Amino acid sequence: MAKMLFTNILGSFVLEDTAERSLHIIGQELFKTSADYKARENAEKKLLAHYPRTVPLPAGKIPLALALFAEKQYFPLFHDRNGELTKEALQRSVSEDDFISQTISTLKDLDKICNMLAKRLREWYDLYAPEVVRGIASHEQFVAAVLEKKKDAQSFGAALSKADVDEMRELARQLQELYALQTHQEAYLESVMQKHCPNILALAGAKIGAQLLDLAKSLKRLALLPASTIQLLGAEKALFRHMVTGSRSPKYGLLLQHPLVQKAPARERGKMARRLADKLSLCARLDYFKGELKGKAYYQELEEKLR
Amino acid sequence: MAKMLFTNILGSFVLEDTAERSLHIIGQELFKTSADYKARENAEKKLLAHYPRTVPLPAGKIPLALALFAEKQYFPLFHDRNGELTKEALQRSVSEDDFISQTISTLKDLDKICNMLAKRLREWYDLYAPEVVRGIASHEQFVAAVLEKKKDAQSFGAALSKADVDEMRELARQLQELYALQTHQEAYLESVMQKHCPNILALAGAKIGAQLLDLAKSLKRLALLPASTIQLLGAEKALFRHMVTGSRSPKYGLLLQHPLVQKAPARERGKMARRLADKLSLCARLDYFKGELKGKAYYQELEEKLR
Repeated sequence: MAKMLFTNILGSFVLEDTAERSLHIIGQELFKTSADYKARENAEKKLLAHYPRTVPLPAGKIPLALALFAEKQYFPLFHDRNGELTKEALQRSVSEDDFISQTISTLKDLDKICNMLAKRLREWYDLYAPEVVRGIASHEQFVAAVLEKKKDAQSFGAALSKADVDEMRELARQLQELYALQTHQEAYLESVMQKHCPNILALAGAKIGAQLLDLAKSLKRLALLPASTIQLLGAEKALFRHMVTGSRSPKYGLLLQHPLVQKAPARERGKMARRLADKLSLCARLDYFKGELKGKAYYQELEEKLR
Repeated sequence: MAKMLFTNILGSFVLEDTAERSLHIIGQELFKTSADYKARENAEKKLLAHYPRTVPLPAGKIPLALALFAEKQYFPLFHDRNGELTKEALQRSVSEDDFISQTISTLKDLDKICNMLAKRLREWYDLYAPEVVRGIASHEQFVAAVLEKKKDAQSFGAALSKADVDEMRELARQLQELYALQTHQEAYLESVMQKHCPNILALAGAKIGAQLLDLAKSLKRLALLPASTIQLLGAEKALFRHMVTGSRSPKYGLLLQHPLVQKAPARERGKMARRLADKLSLCARLDYFKGELKGKAYYQELEEKLR
């Protein structure tokens, strides 16, 4: 009768056929922790030394082997061991890609929020000092002016009580903190990218680079994408419209925002986006395989082409 | 020849016909400030005393009188005087109605913003401590838990570096301040309404009352609206659909959110909304004409009816 080796998360086992088409265990090495399971070769070697001429369990007998463990006594142990392994897998699955995705999403939300609140504050403050609202185009500088309590003596705005003005200032103070949070998160995003994907950071900048990673889901997937796909990330809508209705195909998605594409003359933008996507694809691969730092050199190379 | 009295923002004038179908000035009282213009009866009386048998300028001669002043020398003075008067009118036009509108709009924005950021933080924090994210339903309590640095020892979340966790905490800290700003603005809204429309505040509460005022544009307009219109404020879409397509007419708009309507059994809600709108209409009039305080009594009266 053949001796057969079978391993699950509880341990390694040597099984033997019994007469009535079932198996029984003749030897075992139980695992004490899930770490033992991960180093299961040790247990298997030990058993093979003890039971010579043991062969791996043939595929046809797997159902019989599984039936051996379909008993209540094993259930709690299966549950715990599975929990441990799942937990470790989950914990390992969190990577810099996630931080970058979360941060760039937060930054996009913050941008929307700051605009929303700044417009609200402008409308409100207009009752009090319209010359400040209309005289300062930048939201951030406007907020600073509100907090500095600048009001023209010649103002057309109403003379309001301190309580009424203070309420607007509270909103302005909050806005200023949101702007500070934006700056803080941008710095954090850069620091994560500096470690995780320095080449993409150098060539695309933090915001565009992070959005590319977010669209591709991970650095690994970005590294695997062809350059032509990278060129069109963020232009999915136009691309599908092109495919369905035969309208002109898009030349760039997100990359349109890149300063090199912006600076290129309108006729050359498609070409520049293609070149940039080529280099970004190289950068993603360099970053994924922890290669050398070439992002900056690529940037300069492309800049040369512009002249 | 008839002597005619004519007043504009520069002064009061006594005019007389000349032969060639034009007028000339025979007497005048110039205004030194726009305050003189507002008390123009004084100047006019003075002139009438000096020039007896002066009549008001007949409408037919107004173009001739205006032609007298269509000269460059008057333009700067017209400009300045008009500016002053416009400024005063603008300043006077700012009222508590505006503060209430601005504050309720800010509160609605803040509500949206807090939800947006809380969801973002939950998604992010899920990488680190999923049991906190899933275990706490209230956004506000969740944010507090993040700041208290609670993390289960058995957590399925990844072990992250301090820098990575701190970045989430920054967002949580900001969110907590936004919640504080919400509370602050709610208190301010109540204090403004307590002065401006205490009856509406007592009967409808700060949020619903402020939204009604915002929809009606001002307390004055709300006081002039029929109760049936107040009942449907905030249900404009359903109302117009009813008018255009003949679908069933709406029974309530904003008032559906009122606790009395909420507590009423479903079949009685329309009736309760109508009663509430009746009383709110009375409250708006009491508030606009600075009448007695009856909002609370109305509330109790309606509450009685519920039982």
